Amino acid sequence: MLLSTIPTNKSISCCGRTNYGSSQSKPNSAHAIDFQAKVFPKENVITSPKQDDDKTVTPAEKIPQHLNWESRKFDWVYDTFGGKLRQGGLVFQQNFSIRSYDLGPDGKATIGCLMERLLETSVQHCRSLGLYAGGLGSTPEMTKRGLVWVMCKLQTVVEKYPSWAEVIQIDTCTGASGNNGLFRDWIVRDYSTGQILIRATGLLMLMHMKTRKFSKVTAEITDELRSALMDSDPLIDINNAKLGRLDIDARNYFQTSVAKPGWSDLDVNQHVSSAKYVDWVFKSIPFSVLETHELSSMTMEYRSECRRDSAVQSLTAVARDGTGDSTHNQGVEFDHLLRLQTGSKVLRARTVWKPICDGFFSTLKIPATNGCT
Amino acid sequence: MLLSTIPTNKSISCCGRTNYGSSQSKPNSAHAIDFQAKVFPKENVITSPKQDDDKTVTPAEKIPQHLNWESRKFDWVYDTFGGKLRQGGLVFQQNFSIRSYDLGPDGKATIGCLMERLLETSVQHCRSLGLYAGGLGSTPEMTKRGLVWVMCKLQTVVEKYPSWAEVIQIDTCTGASGNNGLFRDWIVRDYSTGQILIRATGLLMLMHMKTRKFSKVTAEITDELRSALMDSDPLIDINNAKLGRLDIDARNYFQTSVAKPGWSDLDVNQHVSSAKYVDWVFKSIPFSVLETHELSSMTMEYRSECRRDSAVQSLTAVARDGTGDSTHNQGVEFDHLLRLQTGSKVLRARTVWKPICDGFFSTLKIPATNGCT
Repeated sequence: MLLSTIPTNKSISCCGRTNYGSSQSKPNSAHAIDFQAKVFPKENVITSPKQDDDKTVTPAEKIPQHLNWESRKFDWVYDTFGGKLRQGGLVFQQNFSIRSYDLGPDGKATIGCLMERLLETSVQHCRSLGLYAGGLGSTPEMTKRGLVWVMCKLQTVVEKYPSWAEVIQIDTCTGASGNNGLFRDWIVRDYSTGQILIRATGLLMLMHMKTRKFSKVTAEITDELRSALMDSDPLIDINNAKLGRLDIDARNYFQTSVAKPGWSDLDVNQHVSSAKYVDWVFKSIPFSVLETHELSSMTMEYRSECRRDSAVQSLTAVARDGTGDSTHNQGVEFDHLLRLQTGSKVLRARTVWKPICDGFFSTLKIPATNGCT
Repeated sequence: MLLSTIPTNKSISCCGRTNYGSSQSKPNSAHAIDFQAKVFPKENVITSPKQDDDKTVTPAEKIPQHLNWESRKFDWVYDTFGGKLRQGGLVFQQNFSIRSYDLGPDGKATIGCLMERLLETSVQHCRSLGLYAGGLGSTPEMTKRGLVWVMCKLQTVVEKYPSWAEVIQIDTCTGASGNNGLFRDWIVRDYSTGQILIRATGLLMLMHMKTRKFSKVTAEITDELRSALMDSDPLIDINNAKLGRLDIDARNYFQTSVAKPGWSDLDVNQHVSSAKYVDWVFKSIPFSVLETHELSSMTMEYRSECRRDSAVQSLTAVARDGTGDSTHNQGVEFDHLLRLQTGSKVLRARTVWKPICDGFFSTLKIPATNGCT
């Protein structure tokens, strides 16, 4: 999966619910999955008793009736940290220990580390479905046509950050978004308590590898994908997630100097890694905010690819300073822009920050912007 | 464990083998551990059959006689990815899956990712020994006196880099280095084949938290540490590992612009993380080398602390360009220096790079240095 797109082909819609992923689809209302169902309660999770057990489990009798998943093969895929994975799961589950190197200066797992783990579960899920060889999530027809899925938008909502030595469990699934897109959902839970820590939804579109333009999903691709898609709405209404527009001309923003990525910032596709995008966004947020606040939501819209010769600048503008009485407890919001030296936009983002505690919050002083310097 | 030191107290020696860690020590020759023994062959490894099995295993009968470890309690500690850890192991063992986010642009685990995992095993080993509360590896006496262990030097030798979805097994132990230091060894193996991938040794010294000066190891601390130390020589002769001196005045080096660390670069101690040091070193190495060569050895000497307000510059000088006939297959060597804007040295390093293949190697063109620009 690429994490950057060139969204020049505006005629392709990926908004709204569709049923292309289900040949036996019922009206949306009948298939609606309420939120509690979507969080995959523990009693429905089939875990592998042995690490090397690759037997398919179809626990139809354990699926609550209101989920309406009776007609679907429902294989839980269980990560075994190196053991065999079950094939063909609609919902993929993987556990991660939080290590010392995952922690930020506040002693909790960083958002970058957590987003990397979300993406790892996508990779492993596609691998378990056999949709991997021609690109992450690629079907044979897609490979034949030179098409790949690219992430256009991603929203991550954090309830609580895990700490060192805690184990998190990530459930992920994918479904259709409109006629030409896919969504992917993630739910991160504290493995020991089951408490939900993070919810996230990503929006993916088909892109031609050569032309870098979006493409429609053909009937052949629809047929190939059908059995892999969850028949549900995304956890987060990602299509309507709003992003503020950072006004370059207003110059009321914090900015970093232009910098090129280093070797360590590149992923296997020679792109700048998604974790680096988060680092860059953070670089233009004042330390006074980072020290006193915790990121509670991040929405990112990927606009163009960023490679090793891309000189990038990070800009942050205050969307809501949170110091007014009426918004005292709603935290601080920022609009962000990563742009190339040429002016092209790489990433637009909106972050929401909640005070770590009221005592800290009351001391927040957002410094003057440096956009004019 | 801090990863930076201020080595101003030169009177403290940590060179040479000592027996302060063993009350029952025999002459060195009797205790000598040959290299094959030190790599912990598989038949000696006791693995936990159940993830939650915290029963202590003392496989005295399984230890080869030539190891001379008969007099020692020999508890293998087995990481269970979130399960309970056995207490009090002389050798600590932990497994890690290589994830998609661990990979560099060459599709293999990065040296930074691997070094982070080495340090994680140190943290977990100290935790399993109960030496953690006052600082990593801190005994009660050290905590009382305000002393912590700091890493002074670290050498990592890579035979082979693991790839995605592979599982690595890391064995680590610690022992005395001279009268006032500790060494820590790591052996990284391919979990499925047992092949050794990486060997590393670090050198640690005692430092006063307040004065930031080195301290001697007292008799009380010696007594507290005795049972935790392996009675052996370090895997790598870290005391004599040579580092070239990068001549600032010669200006025949590659250099980056001065940059301050971002929020994401800081660890829980508000220091720049060790992985960031590796990134910074790499930033001043030409891409033409990184594309055609693989790091085979890295020796780092930590000179001073680096915090969030430290403006750092990375410098790299060619120590051996590897293009001469006689050194054709020995690769390329560089001397590195990270220094603060004030001129203080943060890190000295030597890296050795071997060609990925002869075909690539023959195309290597190290560009002109930019130290004069």
